[in-house]
Amino acid sequence: MTTDLRTPALSALAGQTIELPSWAFGNSGTRFKVFGQAGVARDPYEKLEDAAQVHKHTGAAPRVSLHIPWDLVDDYAKLAAHARDLGVQIGAINSNLFQDDEYKLGSLTHADAAVRRRAVEHHAQCIEVMRATGSTDLKIWLPDGTNYPGQDDLRERQDRLADSLRQIYAMLDADMRILLEYKFFEPYFYAMDIPDWGTSLVHCLELGEQATVVLDTGHHAPGTNIEFIVMQLLRLGRLGAFDFNSRNYADDDLIVGSADPFQLFRIMNEIVAQGAHRPESGVNFMLDQCHNLEKKIPGQIRSVMNVQEATAKALLVDREALAAAQRSGEVLDAHSVLMDAFSTDVRPLLGELRESQGLDADPYAAFARSGYQQRIERERVGGQQAGWGA
Amino acid sequence: MTTDLRTPALSALAGQTIELPSWAFGNSGTRFKVFGQAGVARDPYEKLEDAAQVHKHTGAAPRVSLHIPWDLVDDYAKLAAHARDLGVQIGAINSNLFQDDEYKLGSLTHADAAVRRRAVEHHAQCIEVMRATGSTDLKIWLPDGTNYPGQDDLRERQDRLADSLRQIYAMLDADMRILLEYKFFEPYFYAMDIPDWGTSLVHCLELGEQATVVLDTGHHAPGTNIEFIVMQLLRLGRLGAFDFNSRNYADDDLIVGSADPFQLFRIMNEIVAQGAHRPESGVNFMLDQCHNLEKKIPGQIRSVMNVQEATAKALLVDREALAAAQRSGEVLDAHSVLMDAFSTDVRPLLGELRESQGLDADPYAAFARSGYQQRIERERVGGQQAGWGA
Amino acid sequence: MTTDLRTPALSALAGQTIELPSWAFGNSGTRFKVFGQAGVARDPYEKLEDAAQVHKHTGAAPRVSLHIPWDLVDDYAKLAAHARDLGVQIGAINSNLFQDDEYKLGSLTHADAAVRRRAVEHHAQCIEVMRATGSTDLKIWLPDGTNYPGQDDLRERQDRLADSLRQIYAMLDADMRILLEYKFFEPYFYAMDIPDWGTSLVHCLELGEQATVVLDTGHHAPGTNIEFIVMQLLRLGRLGAFDFNSRNYADDDLIVGSADPFQLFRIMNEIVAQGAHRPESGVNFMLDQCHNLEKKIPGQIRSVMNVQEATAKALLVDREALAAAQRSGEVLDAHSVLMDAFSTDVRPLLGELRESQGLDADPYAAFARSGYQQRIERERVGGQQAGWGA
Amino acid sequence: MTTDLRTPALSALAGQTIELPSWAFGNSGTRFKVFGQAGVARDPYEKLEDAAQVHKHTGAAPRVSLHIPWDLVDDYAKLAAHARDLGVQIGAINSNLFQDDEYKLGSLTHADAAVRRRAVEHHAQCIEVMRATGSTDLKIWLPDGTNYPGQDDLRERQDRLADSLRQIYAMLDADMRILLEYKFFEPYFYAMDIPDWGTSLVHCLELGEQATVVLDTGHHAPGTNIEFIVMQLLRLGRLGAFDFNSRNYADDDLIVGSADPFQLFRIMNEIVAQGAHRPESGVNFMLDQCHNLEKKIPGQIRSVMNVQEATAKALLVDREALAAAQRSGEVLDAHSVLMDAFSTDVRPLLGELRESQGLDADPYAAFARSGYQQRIERERVGGQQAGWGA
Repeated sequence: MTTDLRTPALSALAGQTIELPSWAFGNSGTRFKVFGQAGVARDPYEKLEDAAQVHKHTGAAPRVSLHIPWDLVDDYAKLAAHARDLGVQIGAINSNLFQDDEYKLGSLTHADAAVRRRAVEHHAQCIEVMRATGSTDLKIWLPDGTNYPGQDDLRERQDRLADSLRQIYAMLDADMRILLEYKFFEPYFYAMDIPDWGTSLVHCLELGEQATVVLDTGHHAPGTNIEFIVMQLLRLGRLGAFDFNSRNYADDDLIVGSADPFQLFRIMNEIVAQGAHRPESGVNFMLDQCHNLEKKIPGQIRSVMNVQEATAKALLVDREALAAAQRSGEVLDAHSVLMDAFSTDVRPLLGELRESQGLDADPYAAFARSGYQQRIERERVGGQQAGWGA
Repeated sequence: MTTDLRTPALSALAGQTIELPSWAFGNSGTRFKVFGQAGVARDPYEKLEDAAQVHKHTGAAPRVSLHIPWDLVDDYAKLAAHARDLGVQIGAINSNLFQDDEYKLGSLTHADAAVRRRAVEHHAQCIEVMRATGSTDLKIWLPDGTNYPGQDDLRERQDRLADSLRQIYAMLDADMRILLEYKFFEPYFYAMDIPDWGTSLVHCLELGEQATVVLDTGHHAPGTNIEFIVMQLLRLGRLGAFDFNSRNYADDDLIVGSADPFQLFRIMNEIVAQGAHRPESGVNFMLDQCHNLEKKIPGQIRSVMNVQEATAKALLVDREALAAAQRSGEVLDAHSVLMDAFSTDVRPLLGELRESQGLDADPYAAFARSGYQQRIERERVGGQQAGWGA
Repeated sequence: MTTDLRTPALSALAGQTIELPSWAFGNSGTRFKVFGQAGVARDPYEKLEDAAQVHKHTGAAPRVSLHIPWDLVDDYAKLAAHARDLGVQIGAINSNLFQDDEYKLGSLTHADAAVRRRAVEHHAQCIEVMRATGSTDLKIWLPDGTNYPGQDDLRERQDRLADSLRQIYAMLDADMRILLEYKFFEPYFYAMDIPDWGTSLVHCLELGEQATVVLDTGHHAPGTNIEFIVMQLLRLGRLGAFDFNSRNYADDDLIVGSADPFQLFRIMNEIVAQGAHRPESGVNFMLDQCHNLEKKIPGQIRSVMNVQEATAKALLVDREALAAAQRSGEVLDAHSVLMDAFSTDVRPLLGELRESQGLDADPYAAFARSGYQQRIERERVGGQQAGWGA
Repeated sequence: MTTDLRTPALSALAGQTIELPSWAFGNSGTRFKVFGQAGVARDPYEKLEDAAQVHKHTGAAPRVSLHIPWDLVDDYAKLAAHARDLGVQIGAINSNLFQDDEYKLGSLTHADAAVRRRAVEHHAQCIEVMRATGSTDLKIWLPDGTNYPGQDDLRERQDRLADSLRQIYAMLDADMRILLEYKFFEPYFYAMDIPDWGTSLVHCLELGEQATVVLDTGHHAPGTNIEFIVMQLLRLGRLGAFDFNSRNYADDDLIVGSADPFQLFRIMNEIVAQGAHRPESGVNFMLDQCHNLEKKIPGQIRSVMNVQEATAKALLVDREALAAAQRSGEVLDAHSVLMDAFSTDVRPLLGELRESQGLDADPYAAFARSGYQQRIERERVGGQQAGWGA
């Protein structure tokens, strides 16, 4: 590790933030089974309390995304104040287009104009939440699609989608933006209506400057080179946010960096190469994961640490040496410069960072020692645990 | 279509049967949402009534698989008699190893011997149901697996699995067999404990002659040549059954033949080439699908028709001409013989078969006209609709 | 088959043309082995003669793509006249960016400006061939990419590519267009520089109206819904051409329609739904295949027939019934309308079409009877058989 | 890193050996282009000289696999002596079943008994080479397969294969074994005759104890969990050897550990967990890669280093802590134990090992400084560079 890369790396890492999803603190599972866990949060307030623990120990997770209607409350000013009291703030607002019976055959793309209208209006509600909480990111994951060839007209669905998005876009305040997500498959299994980054980009270009693409690392075909897409969207100025997680097969929603830490490093390398790790880049680094088997708060802590480690490695790439090796045409030399950074054990560097911030060098262990988990398991008795359905 | 292929094809088709899954008549969905449908069956008796409709109109679906505990009743002799009254019978009995909280980290493979014991004993219960209903097929889909590298010891899990299976095998009556299913992924996303046909076969070989492999057409890695596996398992005498359905991406559980009818044809072609379409082959052709969007009974009728059409095409392959072309080394000529059968419109042939059996040539239309769907939507009010959880 | 769909289908089929690749008449193979065949063409003139046989028997293949420098000749006016004498004409001109030692690390994207300049200038040569032959389509498949992370800067490669393409675009005559192809992987295995339709589209949008996307059916990630991309590019007015072939695994370059005839039908269904099968749509339907094992001319004939059959089925979709079923929300009914067309045996309809054009109903058999294959095997002795290297 | 894991790790690493393929020192490429490199070996003797350089600098690569007929020489005793003089020895002998025109439609599976006989006899020749060189491993990669459904009878091909293998097996000396390789696809694109580990295992079981499976890390379907297969084959006592390399898409044959170093670690973790890293396990760890762009000798050095690093990390897994965490059911704790080892920078440990062996801590740099590359580029002028065809 070259000494003069350490100092700027520490500085950059100190400025990095990762947004947490409120739903990571509720129960989740597969279509086969949702396994409940003791101590799981029962309302948005408790979710924020759990999320604040992640920030408390990592110092890097000061925002929490909400999901509407899962996080519906009577008073959003109060929820935002609760967040502030806990040392965090409300991040992106996620709309939900997949849990109404009406949406079985589509929401923003539905053949019936009345259903589309309801789906559009749901975003008006989300924008109200944004205004009340100070959020500026409206995240739209369109779950629409079809299961069978012929089920609906693919082209008309695109046209309806464009029309619905135009209406939502028109509601945005000047400081708001749409984050438009794509997904390869699920919950539909023949054709998703926004299956790839190209489709998401095409709609964003049509909408205007306040529309950008969200890249969920689990939403691609097998073998897709994700860092290439990251690079391309940054080049086009349209990468709005990440949904970080891991996959081996489908949208597995595992802990980011647990399935392929080298891929996460390569993604962060493209980010760092274009300076998009800096807060002013406007790229929102969010987690979007399920913790079906593992505990929720440790799972989020581990995830934040994994992103930090990948970022630290990317910051330690000797870019001058890399550029020189690339220019030389010596393929292995250039590859080796990159691999040197990846092979570095950055845990001491991050420990140093945390200690300089008054934190424990090992957030995972610190949380385990804190007794918080035992306390919530003891105290959160009764009530309805949060989950995707609530 | 060569005349002398038609007659034996009609005869073979008349003998073909396809087993229906009771759970196809309950609600199902994705992890995101289960959309309910009017008229859905509320108990095993109503599921059998719906299944009997499929047999009534197709004449080819005389058996119904049960799933324990979804189909738990007090009196299985009564349920079997109900089936007989409806013109059908009980088929394979499916055990359930994925819905107990105890099974979160495994069932037959769990590190804790007490959990494994419970999972083994569940099969004793299933075998009791088999004795009561006359079923001889015990179908075991092992949903066990892990989500993270290191979560558990892969080797020890195999050894525990082998031990659990031995205990179950020892409980079988002489006329019973185990159908052991494999699955590429889901509900676990790092390593399934029976991920491929090789693993299933290895366990079957260790168990003995009464253990055979179930091939679910949706349980393979992308690009897998499924008909090759069919051929190999037949060659080894270890293909016990099919779980038919369709996939584009994961275990999508779409209607068989809806995603790739040519694949279904190629599968049936290997079946017919080795004579395994004949009832005496012992291969049980079962459906295992979800109908998340489409209606349940028409979905099953369509599925049975799709299997019949693929079988009919396979029966129309001119095997003498095929063998001659294969021997000639003329690649395209051989391919063309196969494609000629696939290009044939076999709907008239199947219509003829059905009319010769006193059925309507078009079961799908006949059911739609029958008024049954309207009747159950009207009459099945109140109660709890069946689903994966009940 | 509804009677009133037959007549317009016949009319549309009569107007459909499929372009043949000159290289399909030379030897090809895998990295492991190129198996030679008796009678293979030895120069561009002989390739045109073989291609003309495909048109002679199908009546649907009146154009031949050239590949430069594989089809370099001294006098292109003479070559074009030779084509006309044979009843065909020159189609798209393909540039070659993958066989110069200089291009090992890139061509239009190479770090060295001198290499990029040579690659750009190669297109000036291709445009000269276009002017001499009357071709208006310049097809660019960019084989550039990298094998190892870090090997080169992905972003800079995009910027260099954009610059190179701008220079080529500036050379086009007003009636010419660029067809820009994308490919998931191969011949590089970490990152291709145009890996997906999104990247190709982004460059086309930047270039202007004379730049359109080529969709090669074998150039996608596993599971990609290709007909969705077809629909989207048509919607955006940027689908310039197809490279038809089949794949099971990678860019297998098998005969179109041989791996998944239902996929080919779904693609043609999107084409027909948007009227893009009509010559005036400007979509160029080209084959791009290898015949490693099968004979070259029969392989092309079979391919043309397969595209015709898929088109015929798409033309027989009862679009009124389909739209009505789609509007009804009855998923299976809508799917069934589509499947009815696919299940139809259209070989008689195409036989009728051919006979009305004075052709044999079965082009494959007619060619086999013609003695042409035996003649070229006898006469083409000596010389160097054409292949990818010549 | 726990101190008491370092010492046994160093000891185990000192005993680890990796076999090099002679063909890695000749030219290779894709079907599109083989880029030649200055200084490439021109005969088996020069290949051994290059391979010996890898061993000289890593101390871990004392064997070289030969490929027949690529490495045909007049006097194998002389070649083996040449190897010994260079400090290395001859490893596995690879047969070649893909470069004869006769093998276009199959070799050991060919419909024509005369072709099969020739293919079997080729192995008699390979066994002669084994006797002359002291090799005991006969590696058979069966490239046979078909491109089109119907092209040949899949079942008959299996039966012919079993018969051919029996004949080869019967020729083995008592101390010899067959290493039988499987491959998902390529050079055939519909059905390979040994496409998966299950098929390879089935044939090995039929043959007897002297037949074992070779696992090539690039020969699987997308998403396949390779370490699971490693575990299963070890459990069954049938893992004979590895062909190490990397893939992102197909059989990319990139440098092992360059595409997914975490996967390589997980594989070595299963190896170490069952003690199969020890020489007495009989598992032969071989490289099988192409160096299309990068230099050959540095590419092999890097590959050996990558395997060593993955092995070192696997040896540093705290297996007691891992087992305890696994027993506790704390999913993340168990995962963390594994990840701690992966996160460790083992380059210093390996540097220490090498220095204790009198080697340079950095073999890659040491080779670069040695001047060997410059010397062969200067001296190897004229002659025919080795490649897959020679």
